[in-house]
Amino acid sequence: MTIRLIGFGNSICTLRVILCIKELGLSYKLTPHAGGYAALKDKDYLANEHPFGKVPVLYDDDFKITESRAICRYLVSKHQSKHNDTILIPDDVHQAGLVEQQISYGSSYYSPSVEKIVMQEVYEKVKGKTPDPVVINQGQVLNVYDKFLEGKEYLNGKFSLADLILCPITHYAHIANHSDLWDKKPNVKKWWDRLKNRDAWKKNFGSC
Amino acid sequence: MTIRLIGFGNSICTLRVILCIKELGLSYKLTPHAGGYAALKDKDYLANEHPFGKVPVLYDDDFKITESRAICRYLVSKHQSKHNDTILIPDDVHQAGLVEQQISYGSSYYSPSVEKIVMQEVYEKVKGKTPDPVVINQGQVLNVYDKFLEGKEYLNGKFSLADLILCPITHYAHIANHSDLWDKKPNVKKWWDRLKNRDAWKKNFGSC
Ligand SMILES: N[C@@H](CCC(=O)N[C@@H](CS)C(=O)NCC(=O)O)C(=O)O
Ligand SMILES: N[C@@H](CCC(=O)N[C@@H](CS)C(=O)NCC(=O)O)C(=O)O
Repeated sequence: MTIRLIGFGNSICTLRVILCIKELGLSYKLTPHAGGYAALKDKDYLANEHPFGKVPVLYDDDFKITESRAICRYLVSKHQSKHNDTILIPDDVHQAGLVEQQISYGSSYYSPSVEKIVMQEVYEKVKGKTPDPVVINQGQVLNVYDKFLEGKEYLNGKFSLADLILCPITHYAHIANHSDLWDKKPNVKKWWDRLKNRDAWKKNFGSC
Repeated sequence: MTIRLIGFGNSICTLRVILCIKELGLSYKLTPHAGGYAALKDKDYLANEHPFGKVPVLYDDDFKITESRAICRYLVSKHQSKHNDTILIPDDVHQAGLVEQQISYGSSYYSPSVEKIVMQEVYEKVKGKTPDPVVINQGQVLNVYDKFLEGKEYLNGKFSLADLILCPITHYAHIANHSDLWDKKPNVKKWWDRLKNRDAWKKNFGSC
């Protein structure tokens, strides 16, 4: 079995898949697309790799699949429990439903808010604009997450794909100097401490 | 088994879940939230129903789950093949992966584009602004879908959750007088004809 990943080491969606691969105890080979981000809209790439010109794209032997969350779900269905005992999506239908619920909270509310924070800080500061308080207010989503995490180690109690998916964007918010938003919320702070101290993260991205 | 759904009959995400319930051969009771959309941000609703103040919310006996795509996946895992032979997510790990890929194309590219078209037409026209060609250009996502559907009845060959999820927003684009965008693409047009002629849609929403 060979897993080949087309993506970039600084792309949030690529990092999400790499983390999933690591948590499942798999190995992979990263092939950055020649020409970088700009070349993702080339005719060939659109026709052969991703119809909307995005990364990541994963090949598991000759099976091709795109879209980070879909790739993670596929890797879980195919490889979970084979190389270690990490459970990213539980078997129980109700527990799995609640992990899916949290994955959807992540893509509907957490990620869009945190992306705005990161974009604001990284891109606008480069352009010389001052940070926009409205955007910083996006951090209010963390109030809800602090409640979710009351008395819990992870969003669904046990670690799951719902936590994993949020690691790269949370990391980017921290390196964009916004750790204060997380640090102010005690449960959210402990959650991120737990996540970044998991082996799969620490050994691979701890220093990025 | 009693399925109770909190939502509104005109909400895209609620309609998505209702369609899934119907396709699986289940029945349900819709309880619109008293006070309408405005009351979704009430303290009680946020605390007890949906932490981000949204619909739909589904109760399957006393199991509660929110977020339309998560609800659909849960209903499939729990009830698929029990009341009819409609398969929304196949058992095969590769086929299921490709359905998830299409679900993600739907939420990442199709739905945001089509939502912009609908919003533009429905809300901006009400406000008296003229339609914005930039927004109408969002219809270009349909070029990619027309390719997906070349030689296929549905996005993944057979009907699946990936098609189902796109029905309500596609319907809204049609009633917002944008059928021309779909009609111009032969495969996309036939796909929508097929979808709206499925029993679950025709019998329940055919006249809405
Ligand atoms: N829904 C996709 C989003 C993929 C995505 O937006 N990838 C970014 C990198 S994180 C990309 O390829 N951007 C290049 C572009 O949009 O041109 C997924 O989850 O994989
Ligand atoms: N990600 C959610 C989105 C839910 C959503 O946005 N629902 C809309 C109705 S279609 C809503 O409740 N809007 C009210 C509001 O945002 O205040 C889902 O898939 O269920």
